[in-house]
Amino acid sequence: MFNAEAKKITDARWLAQGTIYPDRIESLSITGMTIKSHHNVGGLPKEMHLKLCEPLQWLFKDEVRRVGYQLGMPDRLIKRHPFPGPGLAVRILGDITRERVRILQEADDIYIEAMINYVCDDGERLYDKVWQAGAVLLSTVRSVGVMGDERTYEHPVALRAVTSTDAMTADWAHLPYDFMARVSNEIINKVRGVNRVCYDISSKPPATIEWE
Amino acid sequence: MFNAEAKKITDARWLAQGTIYPDRIESLSITGMTIKSHHNVGGLPKEMHLKLCEPLQWLFKDEVRRVGYQLGMPDRLIKRHPFPGPGLAVRILGDITRERVRILQEADDIYIEAMINYVCDDGERLYDKVWQAGAVLLSTVRSVGVMGDERTYEHPVALRAVTSTDAMTADWAHLPYDFMARVSNEIINKVRGVNRVCYDISSKPPATIEWE
Repeated sequence: MFNAEAKKITDARWLAQGTIYPDRIESLSITGMTIKSHHNVGGLPKEMHLKLCEPLQWLFKDEVRRVGYQLGMPDRLIKRHPFPGPGLAVRILGDITRERVRILQEADDIYIEAMINYVCDDGERLYDKVWQAGAVLLSTVRSVGVMGDERTYEHPVALRAVTSTDAMTADWAHLPYDFMARVSNEIINKVRGVNRVCYDISSKPPATIEWE
Repeated sequence: MFNAEAKKITDARWLAQGTIYPDRIESLSITGMTIKSHHNVGGLPKEMHLKLCEPLQWLFKDEVRRVGYQLGMPDRLIKRHPFPGPGLAVRILGDITRERVRILQEADDIYIEAMINYVCDDGERLYDKVWQAGAVLLSTVRSVGVMGDERTYEHPVALRAVTSTDAMTADWAHLPYDFMARVSNEIINKVRGVNRVCYDISSKPPATIEWE
């Protein structure tokens, strides 16, 4: 696929990747088991007619951000949370359907927008205090709920938010209670198909940031 | 079954039940849909050769507790959290197996013991501030984790704790962050089969206290 796509571009000789140091460490095999297989480390074809350009490969993420500031890049790019390479699909547990993608997009949007708009006591946005945040749809679970006079039997959503400096280790963020209450209510009331919201209180290790 | 069991007791004429008022309200059918079917309201045989004795049937739970104090019952009975009639089985999502019961018992024990032993700033036990608490095993979910140099692929546990005065409505309890962190770590590190812990931040309604 890399080679086929490369041929569409006249005189393509380089493949540029945003690989950073933790991607390389986590894909290393020490005991024969790899902790994580990064698509940009283990996912390249064996025979590739492109040379690799990975200017960030020896830097941790906080160092990458410092490079960004040196280059004068805008805050909204530098402070943007990391997002999984394979997209929201890794945050849908169970079969991936159009309907489930719709549910997760709506829940994630409510969560992240609320985090951007929440200003903490020290004037900083909650979003900027958090390393990475996202919603996970537990579509292999149904739990009971009540809507009006009727029982519902829908999916829970798990919210994840972690603080970290290098993504190698991460603590779950102590989100303000009023923030959690508001986001939970808004997701359950507005997103059709969700009737319960949980907050992931696992640190890495032994849990990981993403669920899959 | 009621009648067969009753025959084993000489001259049994009464069935005593702890039915309280919310059990009756929630089992009422208003729109043709019942919100909840309480085993002690809807679960009795049509023809029963026993008379019903339900002295608490017109009382809300806070009123039941006041009756307990009047009768001089000990704190440890009066302040004990409600527990689902069908037992821990309703807190295992998915097929119920011996192994899953073991996992849930261990996780629940760590959670509830920690809550009993946690003394809040005002000197009250966290357990006494909470109406009801319990762990739920999401055995239809597996998520990735790391243990030493190896990947794990185990089940998440959801923790539930609510505050309420009558169980008709309930808010999720704002458990202290240090308590959540400690319980989460202890469950993940000690309970084989669990690699992630979430905290349920849904209020009732629209969610319910129990997941099933």
